[in-house]
Amino acid sequence: MKLVIIRHGESEWNKLNLFTGWTDVDLSPKGREEAKAAGKLLKENEFDFDICYTSYLKRAIHTLYYVLDEMDRTWLPVIKTWKLNERHYGALQGLNKSETAEKYGEDQVKIWRRSFDIRPPKLSDEDEQNPKNQLQYRNIDKDELPFCESLKDTIDRVIPYFNDVIRKDMLAGKRVLIAAHGNSIRSLVKHLDHLSESEIIDVNIPTGIPLVYDFSTDFKVINKYYLGDPDIIKAQMEQVANQGKTK
Amino acid sequence: MKLVIIRHGESEWNKLNLFTGWTDVDLSPKGREEAKAAGKLLKENEFDFDICYTSYLKRAIHTLYYVLDEMDRTWLPVIKTWKLNERHYGALQGLNKSETAEKYGEDQVKIWRRSFDIRPPKLSDEDEQNPKNQLQYRNIDKDELPFCESLKDTIDRVIPYFNDVIRKDMLAGKRVLIAAHGNSIRSLVKHLDHLSESEIIDVNIPTGIPLVYDFSTDFKVINKYYLGDPDIIKAQMEQVANQGKTK
Repeated sequence: MKLVIIRHGESEWNKLNLFTGWTDVDLSPKGREEAKAAGKLLKENEFDFDICYTSYLKRAIHTLYYVLDEMDRTWLPVIKTWKLNERHYGALQGLNKSETAEKYGEDQVKIWRRSFDIRPPKLSDEDEQNPKNQLQYRNIDKDELPFCESLKDTIDRVIPYFNDVIRKDMLAGKRVLIAAHGNSIRSLVKHLDHLSESEIIDVNIPTGIPLVYDFSTDFKVINKYYLGDPDIIKAQMEQVANQGKTK
Repeated sequence: MKLVIIRHGESEWNKLNLFTGWTDVDLSPKGREEAKAAGKLLKENEFDFDICYTSYLKRAIHTLYYVLDEMDRTWLPVIKTWKLNERHYGALQGLNKSETAEKYGEDQVKIWRRSFDIRPPKLSDEDEQNPKNQLQYRNIDKDELPFCESLKDTIDRVIPYFNDVIRKDMLAGKRVLIAAHGNSIRSLVKHLDHLSESEIIDVNIPTGIPLVYDFSTDFKVINKYYLGDPDIIKAQMEQVANQGKTK
């Protein structure tokens, strides 16, 4: 049993170093190229899938689109769910990470970005960025929608969905591809790798690099690796780790 | 209750005037522009949807992708089904329409293209174009898959799917968008407009133009129109009608 997870390519806001969260920004041209490269890599390595999952956010949906197009698998079923959305960054959304670091201090930013259960400042009920006021979530029960999330909150929505829906597909023999976000993927990694709350803090997920998990028939992880050139993967991880620093 | 149907934009093979059928060719650059223009038009006219249906073929899937992207509705659920595929043109797939007209006569081509229940020459069991041998259809019951279709055959797969699945969504209050193909759309038009077998023969569906149906609550069609500039729509329809002629 295999599961492949891919973090969306660079978005317009990654490039500007802004807190994105649920803001629905698109891929940058570089992000599109990253997605296409990931699709080519999966094809070259003869990966194939039966079903795909992604979030409600276009940077992940478009990443999946380019991956499938390169794999000539445009026709595969794609399930979109807000449960795989990025962590909701509350009132930090739209702020520059370096500026926020200068204002609140690098440590506070690191706490907000990398603590386990500390929530960023929340959005007001009236804020147009509040998912309750966004068209995209009009069919979701308003009480379920967050106005800011700690990583723990993100895990608490991602993992039940994974167990209830995706895991069932896998146990039914389906090969699953997930295109998602830094923190929804960290939620999955913490769960699958049995990491502690402190261990997950320093895990960085590179953009556009397929992360492959092999499972035994009783759903134990027996192997895990990133697909691609190890030097590129290492550079990508360091870039993600450095995003919260002032310089 | 509203239903919007859109025929994919120009494909690479429409441009070359080849019989396409289930051959999975992509949109041409012009086809992508048609799809984007349709999305803009739907947005300007404040259309909105709850669910989208398309075929297994990338020219329809990609059309829907561009439409949704322009409408800022990337996150809408999209159901892909082979039941909405183009009519299967059997052994004619890949042949130039003008050449076929010269070889078999314009009348024979018109019969194959526009007759109601005459099938084109069929594909052999071994032919790699036979859907039974194509990866894309690996999860479909092989006995269900065609090796050539008359328009009647296409209707016989499209309409049960429409009634069993899409109509149910509409009756449940969902606004549906369908991105499909010339003959799967003609199947729907014959059904919804109660056209006879001879009346449907001369109906031409323009590419990339949203076709809007308004329904009463008891699912009777009360209005039908193409969205957009009437002159452009007329020119598109004539172009489609002329495709089977030698010059």
